[in-house]
Amino acid sequence: MKKGFKKLIPVSEAINAVLSELKPLKSEIIHVKEGLNRVIVNDIVARYDVPMFDRSAMDGYAIRSEDSFGASVTDPVYLKITGRIEIGTIPDIEIKTGDAAQIMTGAALPKGADAVIKVEDTREHGHSIEVIKPYPPRKNVSIRGEDVRRGDVILKQGHLLHPQDIGIIIASGHDQISVIRKPKVSIISTGSELIDPGEILEPGKIFDVNNATLSSLVSQFHSIPSFTRRVKDDRDELLQALEKAIEQTDVIVFSGGSSVGEYDIIDEIILQKGKLLVQGVAMRPGAPTLIGIINNKPVFGLPGSPVAAMISFDVFVRPTLQTLLGMTPYDPKPIIKAKLKRSIPSEVGRRDFARVRIVKENNEFFAELVRVRGSGIISTLVKADGIIEVSEEREGLSKGDSVDVKLFSQHYFPSS
Amino acid sequence: MKKGFKKLIPVSEAINAVLSELKPLKSEIIHVKEGLNRVIVNDIVARYDVPMFDRSAMDGYAIRSEDSFGASVTDPVYLKITGRIEIGTIPDIEIKTGDAAQIMTGAALPKGADAVIKVEDTREHGHSIEVIKPYPPRKNVSIRGEDVRRGDVILKQGHLLHPQDIGIIIASGHDQISVIRKPKVSIISTGSELIDPGEILEPGKIFDVNNATLSSLVSQFHSIPSFTRRVKDDRDELLQALEKAIEQTDVIVFSGGSSVGEYDIIDEIILQKGKLLVQGVAMRPGAPTLIGIINNKPVFGLPGSPVAAMISFDVFVRPTLQTLLGMTPYDPKPIIKAKLKRSIPSEVGRRDFARVRIVKENNEFFAELVRVRGSGIISTLVKADGIIEVSEEREGLSKGDSVDVKLFSQHYFPSS
Repeated sequence: MKKGFKKLIPVSEAINAVLSELKPLKSEIIHVKEGLNRVIVNDIVARYDVPMFDRSAMDGYAIRSEDSFGASVTDPVYLKITGRIEIGTIPDIEIKTGDAAQIMTGAALPKGADAVIKVEDTREHGHSIEVIKPYPPRKNVSIRGEDVRRGDVILKQGHLLHPQDIGIIIASGHDQISVIRKPKVSIISTGSELIDPGEILEPGKIFDVNNATLSSLVSQFHSIPSFTRRVKDDRDELLQALEKAIEQTDVIVFSGGSSVGEYDIIDEIILQKGKLLVQGVAMRPGAPTLIGIINNKPVFGLPGSPVAAMISFDVFVRPTLQTLLGMTPYDPKPIIKAKLKRSIPSEVGRRDFARVRIVKENNEFFAELVRVRGSGIISTLVKADGIIEVSEEREGLSKGDSVDVKLFSQHYFPSS
Repeated sequence: MKKGFKKLIPVSEAINAVLSELKPLKSEIIHVKEGLNRVIVNDIVARYDVPMFDRSAMDGYAIRSEDSFGASVTDPVYLKITGRIEIGTIPDIEIKTGDAAQIMTGAALPKGADAVIKVEDTREHGHSIEVIKPYPPRKNVSIRGEDVRRGDVILKQGHLLHPQDIGIIIASGHDQISVIRKPKVSIISTGSELIDPGEILEPGKIFDVNNATLSSLVSQFHSIPSFTRRVKDDRDELLQALEKAIEQTDVIVFSGGSSVGEYDIIDEIILQKGKLLVQGVAMRPGAPTLIGIINNKPVFGLPGSPVAAMISFDVFVRPTLQTLLGMTPYDPKPIIKAKLKRSIPSEVGRRDFARVRIVKENNEFFAELVRVRGSGIISTLVKADGIIEVSEEREGLSKGDSVDVKLFSQHYFPSS
């Protein structure tokens, strides 16, 4: 038997080791309507002013504002209705002194007009209207280019598109956009004891959890789980799977076989094809994490225990996918402040990921460790609301400490 | 011209009006691997103990713990290696007094053994090992059922599945699960001035933004935008589109035509086919929001201006989709506390949705209103980091007030 990793390296060092080897994937052209959660390759520059013309922001009457100057309830101004502006066209009439034209929200202002009176502020008398207060120029008018000016950079490269971003890209005149191709990810779970959900659970076997959880995480981070396999602890089978994975995908993720047992040969398999960057990380859970590079493609050996595999994925594979997508890596988990119910032990020099439940008492949030025995206990992740990271500098956290809890799920915890 | 809504009703009243008419959609059976972001219909009950057998949590030697009692460095105990446990099988050997068997993490404990000695804590001498400290029973052993017990409710009905939930469902013996069918949503943008992205921008026309932004929001809330149309301000065309939408989908969302202008006839169209629950809401932006019910299906008339449409969607359509999905409605936007840079005016009796940018100064977050002119200004949503809701009871918020900001995007704002 091997006897432990030579040296566990710090989390940040391990992250840097892999990220420094990566560059964003190539781009592809898509329709902006398909752009949700895609990452743009270039700055997006407005092709048009938005709006493209002076628009009415109200239903009412287009007027020359100077005609209303001095108007009051006791001394109203009367304007002649000379036309009606249809939405979606450029009006062919001109507003001269003493004129007004019916106009709808969104319609283009006719020549001569520089303000719109709200219909509620007028009285109509057949072919004329009564104006009872002065209107300044531009009142109730959206000026051409006031939202976006042609040539403005509306979104920066590397931006992940949200619904409103898709809106402004369309508004400013684009239909096709260039986005980074989604990373394809191999998920290879290893272990002769694993069986598929739905198979008969024979003695000594367990259901393969990691294949599904890691695939779900890949999808959640806007990437494609495109090669998913389960392989026995067999050198030839592992090598074969690795070769296919390297051929077909951008990122390879093994789970299991990354530790120091006799059957833990992922390190040797990686070394046979490329280089090993990381072999053991000073973290808990997740210490038996391997990271290598083969043909410029990152290869991860995650622990076999489901919780450690998911946490190690979040720490190393997530920023890898974000980097391949051209983004600055960031952790999207919402954070809330909470007070510790009890102390959390840890060791200096190691980063701990403590699973906690949140409870609300007297309008204050408290975090409570979900009791565990071993990192294989997947129920801790399900029972927990989030994670507290205990940094390498700390020798545990004390009861009453105010801590940041990173929430797993997006469920709404109303802030105190 | 019509002259304003009769009465604007409060936001919460409008939400209740529609939610009280709804019940969850029917279910469908899927493979648990496809379960990410689906909502389960029933409580999920474990079919097996997890683990199904006492498992080693370490690489080392399975022993009878009592054999180690009294062992020390100066007075070690010697045990005979009588076998080796293969992972994925039920061991056929029995550990008797004085015996030890090689065992790997995850392998089943042999009969007689009740503890595992870490390989690091032993010295091997050919066919025997030296034990230098006492091991309590269960040390380095995962006991059958310690993670999940057969019959335990592992997840409650109405739960939205996250990656770890998929893991525990598989671990506890399920492959097929029953989930609520995804709501199909019609997105019908109205307005004779609208053109498709990619079309030539003729004078007076604007690009149809709402169709794409609202479709993206539907996808974001785990539903399917399955009938998307653009219709001119024409009664017959609108009625035709509505009829098809009712036939084919579960929720119908119009944008534009919901206000009180001459062409704003969505209210009449809804009344022709069903009932109108809400006609105008005391909120800004988003006041001209209509909600109706036709054949038990909710129909929304959202404002035409892109920002108001998105905010009104979030306030009314999001909880509708969540209710149809069998979930308790909740707002998934992460919240951070920030101080107001300047006061925000509003009116008592109206709920305001102020778009703000977050800036960090001296380790503190400040929120700053994104300056706007009119709710059509989509760039405000793109420039903003989130929204502050100013409740109906407040007459604005003051400079320096500590407020909850609901973040649009998941970008990471490290908490102070």
